Amino acid sequence: MNFKKSLIWLIVFLIFSFCLPLKSDEGMYILDKIDKALFKKMKKMGLELSSEEIYNPQGTGLANAVINMGATASFVSPNGLIITNHHVAFRAVQRISTPEKNYIEEGFLARTIEEEVPAPGYQAYVFLSMKDVTKKVLSVVKKGMSDFERYQAIERKIKEIIKEAEKKGDVECRVASMNYGKQYYLFTYLKLKDIRIVYVPSRSIGEYGGDIDNWMWPRHTGDFAFLRAYVGPDGKPAEYSKKNVPYHPKTYLKISAKGIKEGDFTMIMGFPGRTYRRLISFALKYDQDFRYPFQIRTATDMIRILEDFSKRDKNAAVKLLSRIKGLSNVLKNNQGMLEGLIKTKLVEKKKNEEKAFLEFIKKDPELENKYISIFSELKQLYKKHENFRKKNTFLRWMTYGSQMLSFALTINKWSIEKQKKDMDREPGYQKRDLPRIKLWLKVAQRSLIPEADKKMLEYFLKRALELPSEQKIKALEEILSKRKKKSKKEALTEFLEELYSKTKLTSVEERLRMLKLSRKELLKLNDPFIEFANALEKEREFLNRKNKEFSGALSRLMPAYLKGLEGWKKTILYPDANGTLRLNFGQVKGYSPKDAVKYYYITSLSGVIEKHTGEEPFDCPKKLLKVYNNEDFGEYIDKYINDVPVNFLTTNDSTGGNSGSPVLNGKGELIGLLFDGNYEAMYSDYYFDPKLTRSINVDIRYVLFIAEKVDKAFNVLKELTIIK
Amino acid sequence: MNFKKSLIWLIVFLIFSFCLPLKSDEGMYILDKIDKALFKKMKKMGLELSSEEIYNPQGTGLANAVINMGATASFVSPNGLIITNHHVAFRAVQRISTPEKNYIEEGFLARTIEEEVPAPGYQAYVFLSMKDVTKKVLSVVKKGMSDFERYQAIERKIKEIIKEAEKKGDVECRVASMNYGKQYYLFTYLKLKDIRIVYVPSRSIGEYGGDIDNWMWPRHTGDFAFLRAYVGPDGKPAEYSKKNVPYHPKTYLKISAKGIKEGDFTMIMGFPGRTYRRLISFALKYDQDFRYPFQIRTATDMIRILEDFSKRDKNAAVKLLSRIKGLSNVLKNNQGMLEGLIKTKLVEKKKNEEKAFLEFIKKDPELENKYISIFSELKQLYKKHENFRKKNTFLRWMTYGSQMLSFALTINKWSIEKQKKDMDREPGYQKRDLPRIKLWLKVAQRSLIPEADKKMLEYFLKRALELPSEQKIKALEEILSKRKKKSKKEALTEFLEELYSKTKLTSVEERLRMLKLSRKELLKLNDPFIEFANALEKEREFLNRKNKEFSGALSRLMPAYLKGLEGWKKTILYPDANGTLRLNFGQVKGYSPKDAVKYYYITSLSGVIEKHTGEEPFDCPKKLLKVYNNEDFGEYIDKYINDVPVNFLTTNDSTGGNSGSPVLNGKGELIGLLFDGNYEAMYSDYYFDPKLTRSINVDIRYVLFIAEKVDKAFNVLKELTIIK
Repeated sequence: MNFKKSLIWLIVFLIFSFCLPLKSDEGMYILDKIDKALFKKMKKMGLELSSEEIYNPQGTGLANAVINMGATASFVSPNGLIITNHHVAFRAVQRISTPEKNYIEEGFLARTIEEEVPAPGYQAYVFLSMKDVTKKVLSVVKKGMSDFERYQAIERKIKEIIKEAEKKGDVECRVASMNYGKQYYLFTYLKLKDIRIVYVPSRSIGEYGGDIDNWMWPRHTGDFAFLRAYVGPDGKPAEYSKKNVPYHPKTYLKISAKGIKEGDFTMIMGFPGRTYRRLISFALKYDQDFRYPFQIRTATDMIRILEDFSKRDKNAAVKLLSRIKGLSNVLKNNQGMLEGLIKTKLVEKKKNEEKAFLEFIKKDPELENKYISIFSELKQLYKKHENFRKKNTFLRWMTYGSQMLSFALTINKWSIEKQKKDMDREPGYQKRDLPRIKLWLKVAQRSLIPEADKKMLEYFLKRALELPSEQKIKALEEILSKRKKKSKKEALTEFLEELYSKTKLTSVEERLRMLKLSRKELLKLNDPFIEFANALEKEREFLNRKNKEFSGALSRLMPAYLKGLEGWKKTILYPDANGTLRLNFGQVKGYSPKDAVKYYYITSLSGVIEKHTGEEPFDCPKKLLKVYNNEDFGEYIDKYINDVPVNFLTTNDSTGGNSGSPVLNGKGELIGLLFDGNYEAMYSDYYFDPKLTRSINVDIRYVLFIAEKVDKAFNVLKELTIIK
Repeated sequence: MNFKKSLIWLIVFLIFSFCLPLKSDEGMYILDKIDKALFKKMKKMGLELSSEEIYNPQGTGLANAVINMGATASFVSPNGLIITNHHVAFRAVQRISTPEKNYIEEGFLARTIEEEVPAPGYQAYVFLSMKDVTKKVLSVVKKGMSDFERYQAIERKIKEIIKEAEKKGDVECRVASMNYGKQYYLFTYLKLKDIRIVYVPSRSIGEYGGDIDNWMWPRHTGDFAFLRAYVGPDGKPAEYSKKNVPYHPKTYLKISAKGIKEGDFTMIMGFPGRTYRRLISFALKYDQDFRYPFQIRTATDMIRILEDFSKRDKNAAVKLLSRIKGLSNVLKNNQGMLEGLIKTKLVEKKKNEEKAFLEFIKKDPELENKYISIFSELKQLYKKHENFRKKNTFLRWMTYGSQMLSFALTINKWSIEKQKKDMDREPGYQKRDLPRIKLWLKVAQRSLIPEADKKMLEYFLKRALELPSEQKIKALEEILSKRKKKSKKEALTEFLEELYSKTKLTSVEERLRMLKLSRKELLKLNDPFIEFANALEKEREFLNRKNKEFSGALSRLMPAYLKGLEGWKKTILYPDANGTLRLNFGQVKGYSPKDAVKYYYITSLSGVIEKHTGEEPFDCPKKLLKVYNNEDFGEYIDKYINDVPVNFLTTNDSTGGNSGSPVLNGKGELIGLLFDGNYEAMYSDYYFDPKLTRSINVDIRYVLFIAEKVDKAFNVLKELTIIK
């Protein structure tokens, strides 16, 4: 940074430090639950829209431009052009890349509509509507039900509601439980199945800083990509076909290239995955003592296994890259999470809060007794289920680790469930789930390397043998003891050898064929992996039942507890994130990560160049260096920093799943894309600290700058509605 | 940092960001060379003193409160109380510590004068006067002299000047060459030989942050210590004796507890060790390509050897700690240096500067030819001496690595030199040097572990065998080849075995006895280490001669070159640091280390607590935690940050040797102690970047706060003159 620049920083700081009058707020609000007080606050902070312009049941609000693609995306043109993060589009680009044409490295740009290529495995769930169905769902709960019965009744009712709602076709519905069953919402999405890649910058822009900068500020990543949704010539959702035409969304977002400054109002919409802000202290302690240490150890080991394999085999390396990236991301997140939980002493804070609540409620002895009993029941519940939960976590990670095992478990389970009536089946194994399962069985092939998979399963099975007796996997112990080897390890080696040499699950065709077989036919195959899966299934069923009991009990206890809390705090508690559409508002704002350090709200192109070493992940593309050296910045100079803006910070409350969320200004115009949270507040999934919690966003002006000056994506720019 | 605090930061920043009108300046000025223009600048920046109040030949200026102790220290009471850095006093405290009473960990406080204990091996060189003796020195240079002859003549003249100056006794003199012989200065110091430890805080304050925070900002280290100088009852310098009395300095520094703010004028005096700002690009490239990579590799290996040894032997660990610390410091410094040189492309910058100079001088063809020839001669000189310099560096590090070898070389060399007349001897081996050599031969015992020393020598000798043929150590090759072993490695093992089993150099008494022996008697001992040293001596002599040739040539070429540069730049170039007394002025100021990050100028006690993990090096003492929790801050709250100040940044130009330098305000009052530079500008030894180069200082208010509130060192505080 040159001297002139630091002077400008000073001025920026001087001007805007006066303009931070309002405190931003945490909260991942359900769109139809934004009350007048909240709206007033938003208005005061800079919102210029009416509530109906954001969301209305007619489906013409800004919310209807928002798309669920696992993470979040949104429409930015009347012709179905979608904007999202580079890291959200990453797997699609990886899948169309070949050793000859590596689009990850080079980027991809379709200069005409004809050049757009399918994004394999990608689907877009366009938000259509939402509805509170709490009464309907809870109508089936009867007095005297056991927790398991309670769970089953609710689950069945939900399946019925979904079936009814999906009748009209082309839509996909989901009933989500809010705040552990305090409320239930029906969400309806239009499911678009033909998604194509339009424009993705090169890795060295879209992923600049890589793992090193991941979760970090200051950040300099051009984390954006453009896709397009297609439908059949009749305008209805359809599988990929050459005849398909671009989809015309009801709503799309306009883009503001006017720029931002510290203190500006910002609003995000998206699909935050999971937060745990309502957990009681006892449950939080479990996460701190078991969950994160387990996940950190396991992810570390898995990365090592995959990296060892990648070193020996370059072809494998390309295939495994995306898995390693995913695991590294989880690892760094979990490390930050654990550090944060410990450092902020959150368990202690929660305990104090719970104490204060009970203190408050003392004046009403009846209520006091009620809540003391709820607390003690909750604590007992977590205690009772501790071993089940641990075993469950282990199995989940093992299944995640070995795709082969995952295939086998799914195919085996499918053959069991399909014997039942559709409404009697487990969620996830109904007829409506078949296309998703098939797609996955196909697409997973791209990252499958049986030899690496074997190493991974070996790792988990070896660890399984060391589990404490209450968590032991009996099926495995039996299989090995039958083998009558000197040691379990020898038996394990032999077992693994057999699994991988004799199975046919490595072939896509065989997997799809097996999915079609009846239960009898499948078992007749004697595929060793299916047999192993079948042996495991009994334990999974048992755990599944335990899980349902657990959830049933939580859905009985937690809503009552939360109601008490709401009475105490005199507020309605927004529900924890659960992958459903949420809105949050905040403002553009830097922060102080530690004593004597201040982070500004925005980074600059000079900062990108400052980090450039020429080596991945800090290898600016030559095109960008040239533009920089020629000072070919067009209209993209931010007047406050006198530089091209790159990323900025907002106080918006977000978590995984919010990636790609549109960041909107007071007028509802797109000013950036959310793509990360900051390391210092990783634990915000548990506790939102307004001093430290920030979302990291790519400035839309950087998107436009890269598109225009570096990649000459004029056709894409032409399609956008840009307000200057 | 709580919200209230960050608000206060804001205000601080708002207020003081307006008050930075004047640019600070690089420069390590010789005290009698501060011209009127410079003085005017200092006045404008906030100096309120006259030039005489800082330095005058009568010896009553502030400069006469400044002491050379290897690093820098200063008098702060009329009774010889000295303040310096914790890390400067560290070795003394280590030497008085025992396993039972570990003063490093606990700190040391003498509550009365009787409780003050001797600081073994410590001496104080109190600055008395300085004198330009250039004409005298250069009077011996005659036309037609070879570079070697030139060097010898100057060296002899210097010895004569020193002998004359030291005649009056009790003083120690040094003639320093400024800017490669452009000027020569005679410095006279009063040499005080009885230094005692008065008050040193515990390691967890004085070294808080340890290696991790070393060279880093934000910093939270209470790097201070108090010593006292004693003299004989007659007021004259004397060796330690119970009868000795505190020394009364002519001048001592008053302390300002009024506090500082961004933009305030600051001035430092001290003994900066070495800078290389005048090197030509070719010489700089050598440092970048050879010197730092060599030193980084060697220091890394040495640390590994010492740490391996420390792990196996706890007693050894205590003895080796100080060496490991020293090496770690060098390592981190060199790594930062190399990173900085490469990142800033300094070689390229220098080349461009040299080109521009030649371009400028073109208008005078005669001058142009002169400087082209000087450049080419300089380049040739460096080229010619490359292998000698490399071998020299290797031998220097080997001697530094093995104390035993170092003893042997010194004792052997002493026996050679003492055969000559005093004036004919090598500098460092004259009669005046004997006390220093004896002291070292004694004190070194405290960190000597022959087994570890052997490992270290083995490492260097093994590496010596791999040196390229032009740098090979012939003495070693011969010794090994005589042994007629299958391999050199075997021979080396045998040789080392012999060296360490048969030598008597491990004993202090034996070493002192050997020093007394005549050349003949010494050789008769047949001590294998002395024999090895004697064999090496021939090569050292050759290199010494080469070195003198090299320096002689530099002293002929560089002053001419620098004179040209001065003409071009229309300024007098202050000389590179060389361990002589210098003055520099600047201001209190933060910096921006990278895009979107701003470092404030000051850190706080809350920041100390924020870093506290309970584990070394971030283990606050309980006493401090208690004071913090009780909010027992007395008068030490800084009004701008509303917290107890800890460390602050200034733009002062400093380097190793400046440690402990008094930081003075415009009135000449002590406001802090310099103790470090910042990592981002480590390369400032080569190039001063005003945007990034900062000195890190401990705020004197933190010293007073710790002394009063944590260590209750009321007796020390009483002795100080504190302006509130």
